[in-house]
Amino acid sequence: MRVAILAHEQFPDRAKTAVGVLRYGDDEVAAVLDRTRAGERVRDHVPDVQDAPIVAGIDDVAGPIDALLVGIAPIGGGFDETWRPDVRGALERGCDVIAGLHYFLADDEEFARLADEHDCELRDLRRPPDDLTVSDGTASEVDADVVLTVGTDCSSGKMTTAFELAEAARERGVDAGVVPTGQTGIAIENYGIAVDRVVADFAAGAVERMVEERAAEYDVLFVEGQGSLAHPAYSAVTTAILHGAMPDRLVLCHVAGREAVHGYEHVPIPPPDEYAALYESMAEPVAPTDVVAGALNTQRLDDDAAGAAVEEYAEAIGAPATDPVRFDAAEILPAALGEE
Amino acid sequence: MRVAILAHEQFPDRAKTAVGVLRYGDDEVAAVLDRTRAGERVRDHVPDVQDAPIVAGIDDVAGPIDALLVGIAPIGGGFDETWRPDVRGALERGCDVIAGLHYFLADDEEFARLADEHDCELRDLRRPPDDLTVSDGTASEVDADVVLTVGTDCSSGKMTTAFELAEAARERGVDAGVVPTGQTGIAIENYGIAVDRVVADFAAGAVERMVEERAAEYDVLFVEGQGSLAHPAYSAVTTAILHGAMPDRLVLCHVAGREAVHGYEHVPIPPPDEYAALYESMAEPVAPTDVVAGALNTQRLDDDAAGAAVEEYAEAIGAPATDPVRFDAAEILPAALGEE
Repeated sequence: MRVAILAHEQFPDRAKTAVGVLRYGDDEVAAVLDRTRAGERVRDHVPDVQDAPIVAGIDDVAGPIDALLVGIAPIGGGFDETWRPDVRGALERGCDVIAGLHYFLADDEEFARLADEHDCELRDLRRPPDDLTVSDGTASEVDADVVLTVGTDCSSGKMTTAFELAEAARERGVDAGVVPTGQTGIAIENYGIAVDRVVADFAAGAVERMVEERAAEYDVLFVEGQGSLAHPAYSAVTTAILHGAMPDRLVLCHVAGREAVHGYEHVPIPPPDEYAALYESMAEPVAPTDVVAGALNTQRLDDDAAGAAVEEYAEAIGAPATDPVRFDAAEILPAALGEE
Repeated sequence: MRVAILAHEQFPDRAKTAVGVLRYGDDEVAAVLDRTRAGERVRDHVPDVQDAPIVAGIDDVAGPIDALLVGIAPIGGGFDETWRPDVRGALERGCDVIAGLHYFLADDEEFARLADEHDCELRDLRRPPDDLTVSDGTASEVDADVVLTVGTDCSSGKMTTAFELAEAARERGVDAGVVPTGQTGIAIENYGIAVDRVVADFAAGAVERMVEERAAEYDVLFVEGQGSLAHPAYSAVTTAILHGAMPDRLVLCHVAGREAVHGYEHVPIPPPDEYAALYESMAEPVAPTDVVAGALNTQRLDDDAAGAAVEEYAEAIGAPATDPVRFDAAEILPAALGEE
């Protein structure tokens, strides 16, 4: 597929889905749409991903494209009306439009009509399948080895770590796949269920279904975690993934220096060793598992400080650790695979 | 309100909502519909609730009624087509119809049309409000004292214990209310949100909203828990309620002799003391709380064995315990209110 990615006014720092697809996706990116950066290039901002021109709007995308992907999500997941001309333009060119918003494009009257007229598809990544059901509590029986990335907070690197570990595993010849549980992972893999959007009763069941489906395809699965177990708002989703996936091993993701829950500054984050123990205690009665490795996001530190922070973090959780973006996920891969 | 309760073929043992409304509701029950028991009376089967005739169908209900309540829920929450004549008959009499099914009556074409024609309401108790959002993590700031009933499994007495404690508190002159989180509690209180039916991301937020609303009305709130923290399928809902409600105290409900998760016999239930510790560990980083009392369901034991089982349970959790149905919730009320 050849795609354009919409990221108006937010590329690259607040365009998590756009950057995720540029970094880990298989699709060719024809252009990024950001009207504040038209004329620049992706590589001017993000050095280690595929390059592409940045343009002001859909009409400036050169050559044929198969799809327009909405690569940003405002707080609340609404649709920004300033994007309408781009989505309209894409549909009129016969392109599919893909989005992971809480607002479903397929429910928009104009978009539905245009998609129908031009015979293209509106793909809402966050819309759950309508045949979900409760978990059977059987994911531990799959043949694949299952590794779950968990976090001490939201946006702590769970998706990135899952993809980096899968890449490192594949480089070593391991048949590894990712189980995406959020819109960015789903956009990258063209597969998955946004667990946070599923009816609470069926959330563990949705994860179980994905683990069972992907276990039939791969020897090792890296399941993308969501939220965190001590998060005032999102802990339900975290719990559903922990109990639904029944993982063999956990990798604990943390942001160096973060001490309070992002957006909930009155809630302190427990120390990493206590947090690891909490995950293990919650898993134990359903499907016992251990934190075997750590992933530390050191983006805000310089190289020296980053190295020291990783060492300190590894010591705290009593397991090998790295920053999988700055350093190399291969450093924790043996631990994640249960080889040490 | 004067209501009829539909409970075909399931009254009383598998008609949890019907019995709950008979026991705790304020409405006058005109009749129970159960075609297998027509001619019998409620008191023939359930001694300690308001009495009513049992009839074969809606046409046999004498006198005017305001509503028909569907008092049973088949596994999966579907609508049983054998109930259609009763629902149709109720609407044609001008009665509202109330149900807590996953299948929404208001989405049924025939019922929607009849309700419109006869100017009555279809109330789907499980349909969440459409303006829910994520939790702010602020329920601990309410003025009311908040007590949450939690369990070692599904169907372990969490709803019953919440209502029995509220009743015992009111008998002592305490201004106590219940926060219902499931369809039966909602049918009894004519208020509440079925948390298991809420999008996972908003589940804690739904609980927070209810606690904040009811705290403005009462001095003490008994929040009805759902599921259990080590349940393979429903732990997400349990977690959402624990972190959304931020309770001051917990009451742990358990079924005497139950050793495996109901319907998940391969998953053992941890011992009560470990289970209490798990609830406390999960609550701690978000809003610390303790298990201060226990409620033991001794339905399957004789009186002597029940007394001994309660004593043993109290010792195991290190807190006062009772069976609030067989004995008296007043025995654990002081502990639940933090007075001892």
